[in-house]
Amino acid sequence: MNAANTLKNIRAVLCGTSHPGNIGAVARALKTMGLSHLFLVNPARFPDPEARWRASRATDVLDRTKVCKSLDEALSGVTFAVACSARSRTIAVPAATVHEAAARLVEIARNQQVAVVFGTEKFGLTTAEVNKCRMIATIPANPRYSSLNLASAVQVFAYELRLAACSAPVGGSPPLMAAHEEVEAFYMHLEQAMIQVGFFDPNHPRKLMPRLRCLFARAQLEHEEINILRGLLKAFCNRRQEP
Amino acid sequence: MNAANTLKNIRAVLCGTSHPGNIGAVARALKTMGLSHLFLVNPARFPDPEARWRASRATDVLDRTKVCKSLDEALSGVTFAVACSARSRTIAVPAATVHEAAARLVEIARNQQVAVVFGTEKFGLTTAEVNKCRMIATIPANPRYSSLNLASAVQVFAYELRLAACSAPVGGSPPLMAAHEEVEAFYMHLEQAMIQVGFFDPNHPRKLMPRLRCLFARAQLEHEEINILRGLLKAFCNRRQEP
Repeated sequence: MNAANTLKNIRAVLCGTSHPGNIGAVARALKTMGLSHLFLVNPARFPDPEARWRASRATDVLDRTKVCKSLDEALSGVTFAVACSARSRTIAVPAATVHEAAARLVEIARNQQVAVVFGTEKFGLTTAEVNKCRMIATIPANPRYSSLNLASAVQVFAYELRLAACSAPVGGSPPLMAAHEEVEAFYMHLEQAMIQVGFFDPNHPRKLMPRLRCLFARAQLEHEEINILRGLLKAFCNRRQEP
Repeated sequence: MNAANTLKNIRAVLCGTSHPGNIGAVARALKTMGLSHLFLVNPARFPDPEARWRASRATDVLDRTKVCKSLDEALSGVTFAVACSARSRTIAVPAATVHEAAARLVEIARNQQVAVVFGTEKFGLTTAEVNKCRMIATIPANPRYSSLNLASAVQVFAYELRLAACSAPVGGSPPLMAAHEEVEAFYMHLEQAMIQVGFFDPNHPRKLMPRLRCLFARAQLEHEEINILRGLLKAFCNRRQEP
């Protein structure tokens, strides 16, 4: 079945989860919607009996769960990552509702690895973590109390992913997106080039890098475009100019 | 606000809930979506400290929760009740997805009392309970494992109810986009800069400019971003490099 294969290319990433019970509840939420890949970045306690208890009959998801030391490690090989956040942010990647984000994720997941990233129970994602994603998705909620339980947020997101996967029209394959690590390497290259020409002072960053990340996140860079941009940076920095 | 008034006319009814923790988690799920009326039919334990703990900051919903002796009592004054069920049934109540049921519930809730009814954690609703409702709604799920946690099912239903009630688009004013002529001036600047450093040969254009236009068109550049990018191009081209 096409939808099942698409859902296999979607991973859920939980950053810094405090309570193992929530990890188990997330595994159950994922499995009910046909998702099966869970990545944990620095969980407080895992594996843990409470996680297994709350997972109910989704312990197979826990058995395959990968524990990572950094978000970069969890996003390795991923071409499109969406940050799930309740907070509105002043500078960040493009914003969308969960419904819109799910449609985009499913489209790309037909032939590439994608991820949805969730933060800690208390504080959500850090700005640095959000900046590593290509899109930020918000679950529409009560403005006076928008604090969904972590597993509930995953359940809503997984539900929208399943709806999108089961209704997605089959068309041509989307262009090959740049992998997370390629995009990060491009940002590093850009930063170095700007320092070299005196446009960027790391001691007075003035939100320049977050702004440029935001711009390129909206563009959703393709693999081929990264090569063009890095070639251009090289040309700018290697040239010899007459005095 | 119209949506808030509509949501006030929707009650959630839990039949025969075993675990008080689930009741607390349901209260939280309801409140995050702007719902506030919870009715319990013969719960095993309520009130209970575990319910309060799992409710987080939604204990106000628990304080107003009504405990009833029968489903009829909980549905008193209700004109349209929907049974939430994972199982397909042979009985004659019309079936719908949660999405469809939410639209119908919200339509009626503009001026009448409506209800969504959930069964026990283990067995769901009895046929007699379903027969007291006007519609049966199913959450699309993994056919091999469709067992959503009770609070997760309530969360998905409440999410769909909120979406239906707030059909108007949400969000602040969009950022100031770059004008057409600003974007064109940037492209001209970019082309000149690439020629200057030998990255672009106008005699052998190789579709480079169309590709870059495509990239930046997707980003939908803002006014402020054009200034940053042109400043960067200037810095790249004006620098003096040691021979």
